[in-house]
This record gives sequence, structure tokens and C-alpha cells, in this order.
Amino acid sequence: MALRLSTTDEDFEARFAAFLATKREMAAEVDEAVRDIIADVRTRGDAALAELTARFDKVDLKARGIAITRAEIERAVDDCPKDVLEALTLARDRLKAGQERLMPKDTRHEDALGVTLGTRWTAVDSAGLYVPGGTAAYPSSVIMNAVPAKVAGVERLAMTVPTPDGVFNPLVLVAAELAGVDEIYRVGGAQAIAALAYGTETIKPVSIIVGPGNAYVAAAKRRVFGTVGIDMIAGPSEILVIADAENDPAWLAADLLSQAEHDKVAQSILVTDDPAFGEAVAREVDRQAALLPRREIAEASWRDFGAVITVKHFDEAAELADRIAAEHLEIAIDDPERLLPKIRHAGAIFLGRFTPEVIGDYVGGSNHVLPTGRSARFSSGLSVLDFMKRSSILSCPPSALSDLGPAAIALARAEGLEAHARALTIRMNR
Amino acid sequence: MALRLSTTDEDFEARFAAFLATKREMAAEVDEAVRDIIADVRTRGDAALAELTARFDKVDLKARGIAITRAEIERAVDDCPKDVLEALTLARDRLKAGQERLMPKDTRHEDALGVTLGTRWTAVDSAGLYVPGGTAAYPSSVIMNAVPAKVAGVERLAMTVPTPDGVFNPLVLVAAELAGVDEIYRVGGAQAIAALAYGTETIKPVSIIVGPGNAYVAAAKRRVFGTVGIDMIAGPSEILVIADAENDPAWLAADLLSQAEHDKVAQSILVTDDPAFGEAVAREVDRQAALLPRREIAEASWRDFGAVITVKHFDEAAELADRIAAEHLEIAIDDPERLLPKIRHAGAIFLGRFTPEVIGDYVGGSNHVLPTGRSARFSSGLSVLDFMKRSSILSCPPSALSDLGPAAIALARAEGLEAHARALTIRMNR
Repeated sequence: MALRLSTTDEDFEARFAAFLATKREMAAEVDEAVRDIIADVRTRGDAALAELTARFDKVDLKARGIAITRAEIERAVDDCPKDVLEALTLARDRLKAGQERLMPKDTRHEDALGVTLGTRWTAVDSAGLYVPGGTAAYPSSVIMNAVPAKVAGVERLAMTVPTPDGVFNPLVLVAAELAGVDEIYRVGGAQAIAALAYGTETIKPVSIIVGPGNAYVAAAKRRVFGTVGIDMIAGPSEILVIADAENDPAWLAADLLSQAEHDKVAQSILVTDDPAFGEAVAREVDRQAALLPRREIAEASWRDFGAVITVKHFDEAAELADRIAAEHLEIAIDDPERLLPKIRHAGAIFLGRFTPEVIGDYVGGSNHVLPTGRSARFSSGLSVLDFMKRSSILSCPPSALSDLGPAAIALARAEGLEAHARALTIRMNR
Repeated sequence: MALRLSTTDEDFEARFAAFLATKREMAAEVDEAVRDIIADVRTRGDAALAELTARFDKVDLKARGIAITRAEIERAVDDCPKDVLEALTLARDRLKAGQERLMPKDTRHEDALGVTLGTRWTAVDSAGLYVPGGTAAYPSSVIMNAVPAKVAGVERLAMTVPTPDGVFNPLVLVAAELAGVDEIYRVGGAQAIAALAYGTETIKPVSIIVGPGNAYVAAAKRRVFGTVGIDMIAGPSEILVIADAENDPAWLAADLLSQAEHDKVAQSILVTDDPAFGEAVAREVDRQAALLPRREIAEASWRDFGAVITVKHFDEAAELADRIAAEHLEIAIDDPERLLPKIRHAGAIFLGRFTPEVIGDYVGGSNHVLPTGRSARFSSGLSVLDFMKRSSILSCPPSALSDLGPAAIALARAEGLEAHARALTIRMNR
């Protein structure tokens, strides 16, 4: 049974704090193995990739080639069911429109001293997209990672996907093709991250690496950070549903299960002001879970990490929401806009009774790559901004040197940096 | 003597590639020590901080207190020379104005299906600012790190600064006071990063940690990344000056030295279309360096990492600039705006003969915390954006479910996620 908490419990604070602190992932100690793999790929390039891929994935890269071929991609597209192809296209187009609206604007501003200050945004030259193999290889995630890069203007987008025993999800290739991925390589794990960061004979290095992966991939991304940019370190997914008793319990149970079915360490939390409604939803979760193909996963997630929390009023729900800082937040009450300003930390927020989180997973137009594990306290969903960087631009008229020079010289000398001062005095004494 | 390269050399490409690949920092193998320090602070909190600070800084935190007191801060402000106080205030005010113009705007957009997509920006609750001890403790850097946090709306800004042997730069406290820092602690190293990330009895945990530090600090930031947000991993500084022969060689030599005096591993590069002008600048560098208090550092930097590169024309200079991706780029030619669009990678760009980089270090109004070591290829200078995060907002009218539902259901089923499909069908069959 999922946890039950109520803010009226005497020990609520202690139990809620313990709930927040529950680790949902074993941090596997893979760091040394990853260090060796990275060093090997840096030193031996393609030869290391071939050996590691033979060992971990049982795939012969020398026979198959490191790059997935045009023929393989075209076959995947030809074999794709029409409704899925159309749905992926709709997902791409709606995300593209949303990302285009997020494009930052360059600015120029001249101040009273005649100093021009500007900002200019440019895309990175190249990006790497890591796609996990196996069950977590979601074509929708390829769309969500690749489209922002292409909208940002990234010229070269290289994707890696492991193909254990030669098997991969062809829909991942279809999604890559629709999203405009330029190169696809059948490698995975820390070796793929090393290849993207440092390059090999076949894979040219990229400027930034994005995409989810297992503990090896996460450790490798952490290690190459600085040599290249990386996105967040993705953890298991979660949903927080704030709901009043006016909802159909079955609808919200379905939403909680849509998160729980992802992963045994996914987390689904209901916060409501009506304990009876909370129990009704919990009953529906149990009933619907039994009907799911992924019943075992969903039930384990709900049992081990799920929670129903009762609050006295929704202002209290907003406080808890900020402490949970959920990846996904549904606000299923009459006037969700009233509660919205009181909540600061959430990756994506879904308003009203007709906006289930799964719409956002696929075709809402927002990105489903979102900060997990309370990291919404300090990070954002993936967007064009992750694939761009800002240069500041400064231009001074000669007069500005007399206006600003003395202060700069005072600071340079206070910091013991005489050459800094001289770069000004030499011009001011012209 | 600094390196000389010309694009007309037969072996230019190989030598330029080798120059780019030159490591300017020893990556000290400190990772295991840092892991143990972090674990110790997580487990024992203040007691571990006291022990580690006694060992590394020879400071008795039990006697002095972990927090720097109001009295210490006020004494530093009282003792601050008036011109320095005014200069720091000017630096703060100009940076504040610049950062306010960078504040992102919330958006709402309703599409043709009646779906509302929005973005909302909020500040992190709290931020930690690491300030190095010793010679690298620049008050201007405190301003540059703290002001964007406060403009972003961060309520709690906690600073740590090591005080080896009890000694610290009082101007750092003055800058912190002017910038609105809320708490200051006399701890440093990996133990300070651990305290900021995980909290101790005295230091509450923060959401994001920024600021430069040594190899221990960098390794610790890398380790806590994910538990908290971090800014870039700062490396040694560099400047690239693109200049024609119309400049006074002495001015540009002064600019190159303003970088070189920072650090023996700082890097100063001149790119010019006139080899004789290049030699004139190099002679001026030698002459002026001999006059500097930090002569030894500046001469070592210029000798070991400096370079004068001759190009045939400035388009070629732009290509090299993108490969160098310098932290600071000066364009000292007649029409710098003509060259600007051809260069994509640089942290901050200074236009014209009267915009020396040092103006940007202090009172230009832009931030001097910038991406180093070629990371301008993928990252930006510090700004309000680093202290904020974006929530996406989605709101669907009931009709949108029939418009978008079928595509979402097709994708959910193609991904084997039946509970996702059910969250839609259960509403569509209402």
C-alpha cells in the first residue's frame, strides 16, 4: 500500500521529511570502470569502441559498421505504421512551434555614457544525443531531445544508441529521421559518451551531450562535463497531482499509474484536501493497475514510492509541492490559475481536469525532458536554450574611458593587478 | 618568447591544432580525497567542518565561529578606502542594470486548438557563492557572482570564503555587503562545497553553487552536481586580441598583459594581418612586462602560453577565433561590427580600440564571470538565467483531447505504455 500522510498527523513533518529524503536510485559505484572506458576510447578510438561494444552489446562493429546506414533508417521509416508516423510528425511539429517561441532575442542597449552593451545568442556547432537501448528507448524522447537542437540551429546532431545483441527499436530511427538527426551510431554506455566528447576516427567530437542513460552514462557525462556541455543528470520520473474531491477518482488514478508504469522507482503522489477522495483514488489505482500490461512495475512503484497526502487546504498543498519540486505537477481543481502563483518549483505544470500529464509526454507542444528528483528546484526542462550560448558585447566610445576609467583603475589597484590599470591609463593618457 | 604562427606556414594547421590542444592546467587527481571530505561533512556536519578547517586553514572555527560576524563585515566596510567603495558601488550598479535587462519574460500562447502553452520563470530559493582565499580573492568577482543572484530574486545567498591562518581580504566582505550577500562562512575547499550542498547544523543547504575555486573545489562541484545546480567549472583565463596595424602596439600589449598577469597558466593571443605589427606588440609586451609588480607571472604566462598569429585577412582571423573560442575577445579594427557576425564562439566581445577588456572586468556593466578554456563553444557568462528555472505550463480545453488524444494514444501504445493511453481514453470516453 502506498504511503498515507496527513498534515494533521502529529508526526507529519518528520514523516514527510523522511519521504522526501527516500532514495529512489542506487548510486552504483561505477566511476572507476567509467574512467577506464573513457581513457580507452580517448587513446584507441574506434578500436576501443569495437572491443567495448563486442563485450557489452555482443555486436561486431567491424562487420556492421559503427554508423547506422541510410538503408537501415529508410527501412525503419517504410515499416513504420502510418498512425505512428503521423503521431510522431504531429509531436515534432507541435514541439517545434513551442521551441520556436522560446528562441532568445539578441539585444543592444546604449547607456547614458554612450557605452553599448549587447547580448548575442548563437547555437553550438554540434550536439550529441544519447538514446538508451532496451525498454527505455522511447521514440518520443528522441523527438523531445533532437527538435530543440535543430530549432536552436545546431548544424550537426549526432545520435548514439546501443543495440544489444543487434536489436534496436526501429521507431527510434524513425523519430531521429523526423527530427533531423544527422548521424546515428550503434554504440552505447560510457564508451558512446567518450566518443561524443573526445571523438574517434569515425565519430567527430561534439560541443554538448544530452539525453538520458543508465548509471554508466550518467557517470561518464559527469566526467566529460567541462570538455563538453551536458544537460541534466536524469533520474527516475515523478508526478504530483493536486486534486479536489470534484474529480473523478478514476481519471486521477490513471494519471498516477501513467507515471508508475515507467519504472519501479518512478513516483506518484496525490495531494488532496479530502481524505475520503484520497482513498477512492487509491482504490482506483489498485483496480486499474491490475489491468495493465506493466502491472508489476506500476504496482511496485505505487507500493514503494507512491503516496496520498491529505492537507487542510490547498495553500498547504502549494507548500508541499515546492518541497517535492516534482518533474510533473497536475493541478486538478476548479481554478488552477489561483493556485499557480503560489507554487514555484515544478518542471512542467498541467492545469485543470482535462490536461493529463500524458498529453505533455507526446503532443502538448511542451518538452517532456524535465528535471527529476527534486532538481526542478534549480533546473528547467530541455529547450533551445540548452543548445545555445550568449556572448556579451561591449563597445565604449573614447569618452567612456574618462567616465569609467578611474573606478576601474581603483579596483584593479585594490586587487593588485597593475597591468589591468595600465590598459586603461595608457589609453587615457593618449 | 611567445609562440609565433602564420597561416601561410606550411605546417600551420598541425601547429595551430597542437597549440589549441595544449593543456594549461594539471588535472590534479584529487577526486578520492574530495569524495572522503564530502562524506565526512555529510555525516558529521559542523564537527567535520571544524576539523577540516583546522587541518587545512589552521583556523579554530570553535573559537572564531563558522559565520563571519556583522561586526567583522562592518569593520571591513569602515576600513575600505572611499575610492574603492565608490568604485565597487559603481561596478555593482552597472552590473545590476545590465542583469535587469537580461531578466526573462513569462509567456502564454493559445494555439489554434485552444491549448494554452506557457513558460514561467522563477528564481531558485537559495544560492551558494564560493570565493577562493589568497590572491585569487577578488572583490570584483564577488560582485559579479552575487549581483545576478540578487537581481534574479534569490532570497538567500550564502557565501563561503576560506581564511587560511585567519587571514582574508576585507574587500571581499565589502563587496559581499554591497552585493547583498545574506550569510558569510569562513570555510573553503571541498568541505565548503559539501556544506553548501548538503547542509550542516550551521549552514543550511542551497539549491545552486557558483564561483571559482581550485582543483578540490572543482572536483567537489562536479560531485554534488545533481544534488544542487552548479555553474561552469572555471579554468584559467584567456584573451584573444584581433588587431590591425592601425593600433598603437603599446595599447594592445597592455591588454595582453592584463590577462597574463592573472596566472602563469593564463593565455594571451594576438591575431593580426601584419607580421611587423605583431612583432611590435611582442616587443611592447616584453618592455611593459618588466615594469609590472606581477612581472614573473605575466612573463611566464606570455612565454609559455602566449602567441602571435599572423593571418592573410580578417576572415581568417574569424575562423581561428571560433576554434580558440576565447573567454575574452577584443576586436581592435576600424569596423569591428563587420567582423562580429563571422565569429560565433566567445564569452565576451569587446569592440573597437577604446574598449579594453579590463573595462569589462570591472565597470562595463557586463559580467566578468565567463566561460574559459574553449568552453565558450557551449556555455555563457554568468547571468540571472543561472539563478532561475523555467516551468512549462500546459492547459487543454476538453475539446483538445479529441484533437490530440488519438495521436498521443498511438504513441503511448507504440511505446508499450498502456497506462499512458488509458489516462486519455478514460477522459475521452466520459
